[in-house]
Amino acid sequence: MSSSLEENPDALILSDDPFHPANLIPELCRSFYHLGWVTGTGGGVSIRINDKAYIAPSGVQKERIIPTDIFVLPYPLVEPPSPHTDRVFLRRPQKNLKESACTPLFWNAFDLRDAGSCVHTHSQNAVMATLLWPGEVFEISHQEMIKGVRTGGMGKALSYLDKLTVPIIDNTPFEEDLKDSMAAAMKKYPEAAGVLVRRHGVYVWGADWEKAKTQTECLDYLFEISVKMKLAGLPTLLTEQ
Amino acid sequence: MSSSLEENPDALILSDDPFHPANLIPELCRSFYHLGWVTGTGGGVSIRINDKAYIAPSGVQKERIIPTDIFVLPYPLVEPPSPHTDRVFLRRPQKNLKESACTPLFWNAFDLRDAGSCVHTHSQNAVMATLLWPGEVFEISHQEMIKGVRTGGMGKALSYLDKLTVPIIDNTPFEEDLKDSMAAAMKKYPEAAGVLVRRHGVYVWGADWEKAKTQTECLDYLFEISVKMKLAGLPTLLTEQ
Amino acid sequence: MSSSLEENPDALILSDDPFHPANLIPELCRSFYHLGWVTGTGGGVSIRINDKAYIAPSGVQKERIIPTDIFVLPYPLVEPPSPHTDRVFLRRPQKNLKESACTPLFWNAFDLRDAGSCVHTHSQNAVMATLLWPGEVFEISHQEMIKGVRTGGMGKALSYLDKLTVPIIDNTPFEEDLKDSMAAAMKKYPEAAGVLVRRHGVYVWGADWEKAKTQTECLDYLFEISVKMKLAGLPTLLTEQ
Amino acid sequence: MSSSLEENPDALILSDDPFHPANLIPELCRSFYHLGWVTGTGGGVSIRINDKAYIAPSGVQKERIIPTDIFVLPYPLVEPPSPHTDRVFLRRPQKNLKESACTPLFWNAFDLRDAGSCVHTHSQNAVMATLLWPGEVFEISHQEMIKGVRTGGMGKALSYLDKLTVPIIDNTPFEEDLKDSMAAAMKKYPEAAGVLVRRHGVYVWGADWEKAKTQTECLDYLFEISVKMKLAGLPTLLTEQ
Repeated sequence: MSSSLEENPDALILSDDPFHPANLIPELCRSFYHLGWVTGTGGGVSIRINDKAYIAPSGVQKERIIPTDIFVLPYPLVEPPSPHTDRVFLRRPQKNLKESACTPLFWNAFDLRDAGSCVHTHSQNAVMATLLWPGEVFEISHQEMIKGVRTGGMGKALSYLDKLTVPIIDNTPFEEDLKDSMAAAMKKYPEAAGVLVRRHGVYVWGADWEKAKTQTECLDYLFEISVKMKLAGLPTLLTEQ
Repeated sequence: MSSSLEENPDALILSDDPFHPANLIPELCRSFYHLGWVTGTGGGVSIRINDKAYIAPSGVQKERIIPTDIFVLPYPLVEPPSPHTDRVFLRRPQKNLKESACTPLFWNAFDLRDAGSCVHTHSQNAVMATLLWPGEVFEISHQEMIKGVRTGGMGKALSYLDKLTVPIIDNTPFEEDLKDSMAAAMKKYPEAAGVLVRRHGVYVWGADWEKAKTQTECLDYLFEISVKMKLAGLPTLLTEQ
Repeated sequence: MSSSLEENPDALILSDDPFHPANLIPELCRSFYHLGWVTGTGGGVSIRINDKAYIAPSGVQKERIIPTDIFVLPYPLVEPPSPHTDRVFLRRPQKNLKESACTPLFWNAFDLRDAGSCVHTHSQNAVMATLLWPGEVFEISHQEMIKGVRTGGMGKALSYLDKLTVPIIDNTPFEEDLKDSMAAAMKKYPEAAGVLVRRHGVYVWGADWEKAKTQTECLDYLFEISVKMKLAGLPTLLTEQ
Repeated sequence: MSSSLEENPDALILSDDPFHPANLIPELCRSFYHLGWVTGTGGGVSIRINDKAYIAPSGVQKERIIPTDIFVLPYPLVEPPSPHTDRVFLRRPQKNLKESACTPLFWNAFDLRDAGSCVHTHSQNAVMATLLWPGEVFEISHQEMIKGVRTGGMGKALSYLDKLTVPIIDNTPFEEDLKDSMAAAMKKYPEAAGVLVRRHGVYVWGADWEKAKTQTECLDYLFEISVKMKLAGLPTLLTEQ
């Protein structure tokens, strides 16, 4: 951190570039709000560029975030990344805001997959999928949209002939307590591009914000059509076609 | 009220501040219109700041309200807050407008909960919930979105392990006649963050407009997913998980 | 028609006033497009002010109409108002456009109800209602939104205790051929605020564009919730409550 | 191609005219994104004007395309139009972009129908229609919206009394491999205005971008209402009415 940043940490989030994380996060949150993914202050998105992670605040209207609301954390952290831990920020908003409770979950994507961005939604398509697939995984096959998803969220694109598998973990009263079970699911399913949380939503990551966003769109589309198919009595897995 | 306001009550609603109630109410109504909450002139939102309550007009297109359409009432009132009562306004629009018929219901939230804002929607999710839950209450458990709701609408946030209960009152031909049954439900269910009106919609309040809005979003999300779950044959209450 | 209008009929549609019919019709059509009411060039809206009727063109993208696309017809007409009849316009667009095929249907609302505006949508809520109510009428009772509808489309607002009845006529290959059956339905059901066309959509009118629009919103809401209720096995008519 | 274009191929996509293909394609893609037709980088639109075809890039966020992302190809091509073939472009974006994998499919519409534009969506309405109509064709009759569709996508408008038939082909792992089966379906069903791809989406074309877009809207509307009707147990084909 340069001495000018020590004097003025706001320089970390002030930029004329619309693709700067501090400008993108508010824009993406507004867009996700209109998709019904982050209403009621839920959900969010984080972006990591090299040694800096940009995080939205917790408990605020996601469609009204502004750049000066953004937290900046160093990556990697020495301390475990719990929002309940008192630790060093590169920048804290001057307003009385808490960083997103999703931080430890975003960190899973950074640490275990080397992701550059992680999206968390409360999409009803995701929640309905976790209710209609009561087991440990959500699965679907033979949908064109599967081709938009990457192996492990970071590798090569899946083929139309690949089955999509997304693990489902159980929800916990405190969001940060999902950290270990999410990490376990990511290790058990190394090809999974996201992790569903039952009765809660989904975490999806990618090499950068564009890939995290487009893979979230693909997965959400697949959750939605799978729910429609299941309710219409159509099979969602084909052994061959 | 200062003498300048007596001379120019429009000063109560003229402000460059986008967060002034007279600017916020039109903006929120536009946003609620696009969510399908206030179409056909129905529904609305009121904001109270200390001794002044800002109220939208009745029977107009909610997505086209402008600041000069806003009524301002003193709080508390000496007279009972029925729109059929001839009483003192701090400001009336110069256009021939009636104040919202929801005024007495908004007053319940101000009087019984000390709320700073109250939202009323005709959301079909709320109406369908009142039809699929034919008893005195709507209930759901084990949904992450429950954490966005506050005890009594004003207290601490609910836990994921708390059951959400929203009382349902029967509709009446005149909206103001809901006042007593809504008040009775608020007293019988002091932890409820809103009141559903069967075949009509919902009233939700909060400490300020942000909290009233985000709690309305959480409740609406919960009504929506509950209806989907009920129609899919999924249980909406778990005794334990 | 003044001599300046004879010289320059475009003066009929050029105005800085956003509430001028030639400005409102494009704006309303854009808004209706985003509600799914007028996609695929279908549907539309007309506005009549005293002796002039403003009509959108036929077969064009309704969300991209501009004021210079608007037809102006004299009201009343000496000739029967069929688009296949060669008759006098106060103004025709200079582009090669046909006036809306709905013109004779809009005229029903003007002639039989003295309406100032008429909306025609292809809303899927309306079409589904005509399929799930196979008889001569759509009916629903005990919904708050009924209070937004006026007797005959023009009279006093209905009460919550009134049953809403909307006649349904059969579709015809040519839209203008609906004229007689629509007129017959309007005469047989003088209290109806609109006419449904089976497998097609709905016509709704009002004293002015605001009332025509808000009543269309109320009816569409009622079609939508009625279809949901019917599919959920819920009764849509209560004998008493 | 003039010598100035050889020197500056960007002149092919730089225009102040909002109706220039390089300006229209980004605008249409943004609009289709909000309809849910091209999320997750899927789908797209191409426009051909005489001897030039304008094509969107592959694998990018369709709602964020800008004019300088557009590929321009000569029409007709000497080489078969596979994106895997190394061939001549009139213009390639300077960014590292691939042309749309749909190119050979768009070419079917240009070659076999002389279309001026072709739209490809991943609309869930289209995909659900291919699942609920398991045979070789999707069919529906007696819907007003059928009148918005043209014979073969290019001829005269269908009548309300015409049955709409859209062939359904099976999906393939590589999009370009759909070329032959799509062409075969277009030849077998010369009156069809589009081709559905099972578990994938739909291709629709028209004489120009306006007609391709409005016919896509009509077909999508018909897929949507047909799915609703089928799930409600309503017949989608009437022998007579």
